[in-house]
Amino acid sequence: MLTGDRPTGALHIGHYFGSIRNRVKLQRSGAEIWQLIADYQVITDREVAGDIRGSVTNLLVDNIAAGLDPEQATIFTHSSVPALNQLMLPFLSLVSVAELQRNPTVKDEARTAGITSIGGLLLTYPVHQAADILFCKANVVPVGRDQLPHIEQTRVIARRFNDRYGHVFPEPDALLSEAPLILGTDGTKMSKSKGNVIELRMSADETAKKIKGAKTDAERHITWDPDHRPEVANLLQVISLCEGTDPEQVAAEIGDGGGGALKARLTDAVNTELAPLRERRNELAADVGYLTSVLAAGNERANQMAEATLAEVRDAMGMDYRTLV
Amino acid sequence: MLTGDRPTGALHIGHYFGSIRNRVKLQRSGAEIWQLIADYQVITDREVAGDIRGSVTNLLVDNIAAGLDPEQATIFTHSSVPALNQLMLPFLSLVSVAELQRNPTVKDEARTAGITSIGGLLLTYPVHQAADILFCKANVVPVGRDQLPHIEQTRVIARRFNDRYGHVFPEPDALLSEAPLILGTDGTKMSKSKGNVIELRMSADETAKKIKGAKTDAERHITWDPDHRPEVANLLQVISLCEGTDPEQVAAEIGDGGGGALKARLTDAVNTELAPLRERRNELAADVGYLTSVLAAGNERANQMAEATLAEVRDAMGMDYRTLV
Repeated sequence: MLTGDRPTGALHIGHYFGSIRNRVKLQRSGAEIWQLIADYQVITDREVAGDIRGSVTNLLVDNIAAGLDPEQATIFTHSSVPALNQLMLPFLSLVSVAELQRNPTVKDEARTAGITSIGGLLLTYPVHQAADILFCKANVVPVGRDQLPHIEQTRVIARRFNDRYGHVFPEPDALLSEAPLILGTDGTKMSKSKGNVIELRMSADETAKKIKGAKTDAERHITWDPDHRPEVANLLQVISLCEGTDPEQVAAEIGDGGGGALKARLTDAVNTELAPLRERRNELAADVGYLTSVLAAGNERANQMAEATLAEVRDAMGMDYRTLV
Repeated sequence: MLTGDRPTGALHIGHYFGSIRNRVKLQRSGAEIWQLIADYQVITDREVAGDIRGSVTNLLVDNIAAGLDPEQATIFTHSSVPALNQLMLPFLSLVSVAELQRNPTVKDEARTAGITSIGGLLLTYPVHQAADILFCKANVVPVGRDQLPHIEQTRVIARRFNDRYGHVFPEPDALLSEAPLILGTDGTKMSKSKGNVIELRMSADETAKKIKGAKTDAERHITWDPDHRPEVANLLQVISLCEGTDPEQVAAEIGDGGGGALKARLTDAVNTELAPLRERRNELAADVGYLTSVLAAGNERANQMAEATLAEVRDAMGMDYRTLV
């Protein structure tokens, strides 16, 4: 199974409920996890990578603190695995430019980032993702609905490679994440610049303060009504995700307690859910030597796997020159 | 200096006078040569690589037989140098799709290969060439006029990388080859499928036979008149390239000797020029172990250079994770 994060800043509860908690569960149920830190993806839609080393460190801390076991999972950075990146070349020969330009997710990402001139790395990103998925021969990739076109592109590349050169790659399946969309504390899309995000690294007090400022609505009585009361429903949903309870039931329990009781319960729920993670987080963040060794070991494993796969690819393509003819 | 050949089949006198003889001269005058065997380029415009291992062997034999010293030059294959190929990723982020689509050489190559749907590898090929040139920090690249847009794209990528991340790459200069276009023995573009090619690996007898069938024209008296007598001028030109003589002078010397004398002199000139190459060729072709070791050593040197350059690139981009923060 391949999963990944883009190291663009601190992780928040959207990442936690959207993917991290899920991957930890999958690992505990026995999945072999390749956990990609997609540092090259950062420069697909922005010119400056920012403090990428800090963001990479954060990702390591958050994932391990959330329960990902680095002894079982291979955590690695894109830019550290040349043989993986080399797969871009044969894979690029298997797709047409027209096909790349039709990819709806690439178009959306460009629009979201406000890009008018699409760069070469953004256009070819689905091919790079195919390399990420296929280098470790992942069978399963947990994704959101917006990433489905990339998985389909990966399947097409695997199929075409196998048809042309002989069987090397499995065709991976998408594992659609059921995690609902979590909005920011103001009821709009989460965004660091809007200050509407509950980050995993916040303290319990910072979390309480952030939730205190959350937007609700004019109606005192709390009800579960996602269509007409999106801000309240969003907060109820986070409670239910933390507690494993039903949001309608939670709303009924709060009822006339109003916004104050809603926020108090949310604060308690989030801080209870994240308390063990935050404790481990603090320990881990203090042990940079350990984090460095985890990434080094993951990159070494990823390189071994990538080199083995690349050797198969070379052999299939007739480019094995260890003995000439 | 970076030079390269595409391993698509046997080399012929067009390659010899167009690039190989020139690179041997440059090496003898002291240039440090990185000699690329561009195996991945084979799949930019065709679906099947063919007997690529055989073509790679042929390229090694022809270059070394022509005088390229593998102790001084680094002869390497594209697909064997992952760190070089990884440079594609950061470089792709520095060019726009619009820029790639404007590249006139890519358009021409697609047209020549009869391709209507341009593939991802062909579109991004100028970026891959930039990686070829910049991984070894080449200052000089000998090219034909049609390759000038690629060198300009490489200069743009080097400049943008340096501007954004700090100085890592030199901006290479094109060394325009003065070699004139040599046509096939029928006066049209050389093409294996047309059987109009004098290959380096042919014997003196095969060469004589091929030249005997060469096209001249109805006029018996031989003159140097490229505009009106292109077939005769082409044969005169090859004589002059072999002998280091002036084609007009050669024509005057042959004069009423006609096509027969022209062909006899051409046969003699080509076979004399290629005799030492062909002798070494036969020795080399019989020593596959030596050829294998030359390529292995070249690939090892290319990997060392590519890894050193990639380390600089990672450092400049803030993606050095040997110690986290």
